[in-house]
Amino acid sequence: MKIAQFYDQEKYIRLGLVENNELRPLDFTGDMVDFICSGQRPLIDDRVLGLEKMTLAPAVSRPSKIIAIGLNYQDHAEEGKAELPKNPLVFAKFPNSLTAHQQPICWDAAVTKKVDFEAELAVIIGKRLSCCLESEAGEAIFGYTCANDVSARDLQFGDGQWIRGKSLDTFCPLGPWIVTADDVPEPQNLDISCRVNGVTMQSSNTGRMIFSVAFLVSFLSRHFTLFPGDVILTGTPSGVGVFREPSIYLKDGDQVSITIENIGTLVNHCQVREAVRPQN
Amino acid sequence: MKIAQFYDQEKYIRLGLVENNELRPLDFTGDMVDFICSGQRPLIDDRVLGLEKMTLAPAVSRPSKIIAIGLNYQDHAEEGKAELPKNPLVFAKFPNSLTAHQQPICWDAAVTKKVDFEAELAVIIGKRLSCCLESEAGEAIFGYTCANDVSARDLQFGDGQWIRGKSLDTFCPLGPWIVTADDVPEPQNLDISCRVNGVTMQSSNTGRMIFSVAFLVSFLSRHFTLFPGDVILTGTPSGVGVFREPSIYLKDGDQVSITIENIGTLVNHCQVREAVRPQN
Repeated sequence: MKIAQFYDQEKYIRLGLVENNELRPLDFTGDMVDFICSGQRPLIDDRVLGLEKMTLAPAVSRPSKIIAIGLNYQDHAEEGKAELPKNPLVFAKFPNSLTAHQQPICWDAAVTKKVDFEAELAVIIGKRLSCCLESEAGEAIFGYTCANDVSARDLQFGDGQWIRGKSLDTFCPLGPWIVTADDVPEPQNLDISCRVNGVTMQSSNTGRMIFSVAFLVSFLSRHFTLFPGDVILTGTPSGVGVFREPSIYLKDGDQVSITIENIGTLVNHCQVREAVRPQN
Repeated sequence: MKIAQFYDQEKYIRLGLVENNELRPLDFTGDMVDFICSGQRPLIDDRVLGLEKMTLAPAVSRPSKIIAIGLNYQDHAEEGKAELPKNPLVFAKFPNSLTAHQQPICWDAAVTKKVDFEAELAVIIGKRLSCCLESEAGEAIFGYTCANDVSARDLQFGDGQWIRGKSLDTFCPLGPWIVTADDVPEPQNLDISCRVNGVTMQSSNTGRMIFSVAFLVSFLSRHFTLFPGDVILTGTPSGVGVFREPSIYLKDGDQVSITIENIGTLVNHCQVREAVRPQN
């Protein structure tokens, strides 16, 4: 089952089931977090909308947190000349970074000049969770979606702490929709790729993760209570722009597509703004 | 004006005005974020409750984000032998870390053995904000409170990325209440201190910040849209446990008190738990 958030009459966030190229609105008032918390089975109303005509919202728009994992594919750790982590390397993205399929990734040329892409499998938590066992993690997952962990490399590496470069507005495209966990029986065997303007830049499989989804959920839940709708970004494979020779960064007009097998394709284009206002 | 979140009938979060040792519940349904978003002036109902008998909630319980600033007092940067930052050094705490005045700071001895205190002035954002000028920052602030940026130093420095060690459940005591901005005319001239079991460990003044509150709000708003109820922790002065010789860490039963002039005193005690469950 695929569930998307979309804007009804361009204003209110509503939920809909995605089937082929159609969107069937759910008979539910509230957004994705409300829906996950409710534990309801989706009931559709009688409308059928053309998916392509609708404006989607991020797959989740107000998670209590977005937890991201660094260096979780060996080939990506190697291309960055980083040691393999003994524990999952946790970092964060602020929720203001969320944006939807087909919405622009925007940045201000005065803030960053080195914007990079990272294809990631995103896990959406289904219930409140603390100290869960690895064997219990599966039943705590609501579903999966595609994420682009967009990164301002100059800010990320300049600060040492990654959060500023990872959390600019629109730097976390998430979607197009959530595929519920029952329809993703093998989350560790999904092809994942990233194309920029149609050229494949990353191509891997989630089977190459160092720490599995179940291990991550268990590990994280021992540190932080997880809540319904929380997002876990599970790391990116090799091929990102910064570690290429020469480095490649995103530029105005570029189109970035993240595809994950059985989930979908998340497409965004890049928009560079000139500085809007000085600071003082 | 002092506004606290408390549990009504031990269950629902309600708001109340604090005057002397009394709590006067507001005629408002919703929590602090709802109240800030509403823009309403507080109307009190006719109850008067004894403040000491009530169970408080964190000053804000579900901010969209907690933004923290590292190395924002020169003496603290020096004690850590860190270079002074040219820009504010941004890091994050996940909202699951929030806890209230008089609630315990808890940790699992299997997760961390080096827990430290950090007294900080917390700024609560009053409205949606993007690219604001430094001169406009003041009117965008709802109020101020005390925070303890509790830090698991072994995780923080072991990972390099600080978020895991900064975000364990209960690692962000926030309160006891918010003092609205109109009652804090000089946020850069407030004495701030931290005592552990009655012994003064940190003693400084917010005038010694490297980057002022107004500068921080403007700087952050150029990177991240800020939302009503967002929390900014403005950094800690010198005197933290890890940089003492020998280092001092918090232990079971310790009482930590953060006092900020004209705002209040935030008191929490420490509780070390034994490992609840293995990971596998």
